[in-house]
Amino acid sequence: MLSCMHEHDGPLTRLRRSHEQAVLELLRKHGPLSRAELGDRSGLSRTTLHDIVAGLVGNGSVVVATPHVEVRKRGRPVEKLSLNPAAGEAVGIDFARRAVHVAAVNFAHEVIGSASEAHAADLSWPERIDIAERLLAAPGAVHLDALSAIGVGVVGPITDPGSEKARARGTDGLPDLLRKRFGVPVLLDNNTRLAALAEAVWGAAADSSDVLYLRLSHGVGGGLVVGGALHRGRNGLSGEFGHITVDPAGRPCECGGSGCLETRASLDAVLYRYREAGGRADDLAAFLDAAVAGERSALDVLERVGIDIGGVLAAVCQAVGPGVIVVGGELAEAGPALLGPVERALREQLMPMARPHVDVRRATLGETGSALGGIALVLHESPLLSHYPRPGSEEDA
Amino acid sequence: MLSCMHEHDGPLTRLRRSHEQAVLELLRKHGPLSRAELGDRSGLSRTTLHDIVAGLVGNGSVVVATPHVEVRKRGRPVEKLSLNPAAGEAVGIDFARRAVHVAAVNFAHEVIGSASEAHAADLSWPERIDIAERLLAAPGAVHLDALSAIGVGVVGPITDPGSEKARARGTDGLPDLLRKRFGVPVLLDNNTRLAALAEAVWGAAADSSDVLYLRLSHGVGGGLVVGGALHRGRNGLSGEFGHITVDPAGRPCECGGSGCLETRASLDAVLYRYREAGGRADDLAAFLDAAVAGERSALDVLERVGIDIGGVLAAVCQAVGPGVIVVGGELAEAGPALLGPVERALREQLMPMARPHVDVRRATLGETGSALGGIALVLHESPLLSHYPRPGSEEDA
Repeated sequence: MLSCMHEHDGPLTRLRRSHEQAVLELLRKHGPLSRAELGDRSGLSRTTLHDIVAGLVGNGSVVVATPHVEVRKRGRPVEKLSLNPAAGEAVGIDFARRAVHVAAVNFAHEVIGSASEAHAADLSWPERIDIAERLLAAPGAVHLDALSAIGVGVVGPITDPGSEKARARGTDGLPDLLRKRFGVPVLLDNNTRLAALAEAVWGAAADSSDVLYLRLSHGVGGGLVVGGALHRGRNGLSGEFGHITVDPAGRPCECGGSGCLETRASLDAVLYRYREAGGRADDLAAFLDAAVAGERSALDVLERVGIDIGGVLAAVCQAVGPGVIVVGGELAEAGPALLGPVERALREQLMPMARPHVDVRRATLGETGSALGGIALVLHESPLLSHYPRPGSEEDA
Repeated sequence: MLSCMHEHDGPLTRLRRSHEQAVLELLRKHGPLSRAELGDRSGLSRTTLHDIVAGLVGNGSVVVATPHVEVRKRGRPVEKLSLNPAAGEAVGIDFARRAVHVAAVNFAHEVIGSASEAHAADLSWPERIDIAERLLAAPGAVHLDALSAIGVGVVGPITDPGSEKARARGTDGLPDLLRKRFGVPVLLDNNTRLAALAEAVWGAAADSSDVLYLRLSHGVGGGLVVGGALHRGRNGLSGEFGHITVDPAGRPCECGGSGCLETRASLDAVLYRYREAGGRADDLAAFLDAAVAGERSALDVLERVGIDIGGVLAAVCQAVGPGVIVVGGELAEAGPALLGPVERALREQLMPMARPHVDVRRATLGETGSALGGIALVLHESPLLSHYPRPGSEEDA
């Protein structure tokens, strides 16, 4: 997927990158190593290794340290090379409707930072990219010189996912703008799908490689992770759980259909139901407060929404058989008052032999989930980074 | 997945097998080759190649021919080696409820034969295996000495699919019995899922790598092919489209649930609806005849069933985004009288931007589909046979 960068590279550049990755992989695996140890383990010649290490130190991805304790008999200290804990290897950016979220991992694949900034909905792409750059360049944030790629989440379906040619609604040109600004390859996908991937790698379903993620927010969407990889579908149109029909005779949906789950379970739809039932809440926070306080009409609304959601999840489970279901988005903050009914309806509509396998969990990554998913996308799909451990590998062992 | 065989093999045996596969792959790709050409292309030493070829000729997978036309200058004819068109490389067996179906492919991955035999429903496994062996050993059928593996379809969910330890209802011990009888590794899966894989490799969806297969028979089931591979789900419980709820308040289903699609769209359910509507048909053939003759009540029943089916397919499509939907099983013989309403309901319930991508086709492989799927399973999952072209690779190119 990163071939965009490499198709213009000559064989020598590719060879050099492969050597660099071998050295980084050894440091990732073994921790600090001397040049001699790196030479033994990498099989590279002394000259080549010297050259590769100089490059990695130069771009900031590797640092040189001279430990006090370890001294050669002749008295000359042994320099140890290690990954620079502040160097960003991969960055994820989520361009949400009204906010930019960023996150970065270092060469040890540890998350070294994340940040968010809200903005007006009508902001231009260059202005949003400015925000992302500012967040990433903030003091104490990421050292970007050694960056290898950026994974980007955007709103709306991506019909050519993972590719630089992705043409989401309104995102034409975005990958180009980003590549020019950061000078590295850019992978693009729907930000809700990226949140699904992130939950399967770092979040609520980090122990499973088959995950159904549902996000209940202003819109209702989701994503499937199958065998540790993001599932996309033939035309990138997958994980659209919000547009599964609950009632063919139901209310018109923004998608152009009728009676979709989103017409029942979006934040607006839930607040509408609540007010219809006599509830007094202008926003979600007030509604959730009422639910926490045990107000009957709020709990009733969550019960009815939960049944609709559970029915849709049951249909998808029968088809796909996920190991874990993760529910995220603002409405998930209602907790058991929503997830209880969801799980009951789900169990009821599953075939009995599948019921014991239901495992519904609340998402854990919050608003930076999609940016983290962008990183996971880069780490999974880069041929240079293919040693990254797949989520669920322990479970599968 | 064939590790059961290889975990007891020493490194030399594995090396030998890898050499054998390299030679077979060259013959598959280039057609007949001389020993000298094989030596050049395989990189094997003359001694090793001699040894490997002798083994392959000995077990019947390779044959030696001396063409008339091609003669060396010195006058000595050049022997050409080629795949034995009659040698079975992989066999598929479908143990259906009341019949055994078999199929075989040669080393060129061409289907070289298939056969079926009906039997009583209560036949024991050894007796069913007798039938399979008889069908495979029939005169003019398959030359089995060079067999590498068997892929087997059985009725019911397989919770540990692809493994020799698969414990389907009543199939405990079946893989062992088969391995003892045929002396090769055995891969097991649900026979409806195997039919899905076969349609994606050799059947109605051979041009797509993302396929939703629905089978409408005494039961209603199906399977998903994702990226050219059979999708199984975390516990092997996937593709259970027949047990997606159409009406939570509906009739009890055999699965223990209520109002499942199967309670509306199984053959019995359809005939029941038809008789309720005043139709006179004791079996499916008579019902289909009535539909073909344009009888209103038969067409009405198909219309109503089609709407139920289309709704369920729409839900799965929104989640999974397949490239092609294939409908098989006896009820699919109703043709457009059923598939028309299915497609209309499907389109209506899909989000509008997904509607242009709907492609509903009738299955083409018939009753040997699952046996063919067993072969596809073997060809896809054997590490020795991993060069088999993935279905849809052209489409993806």
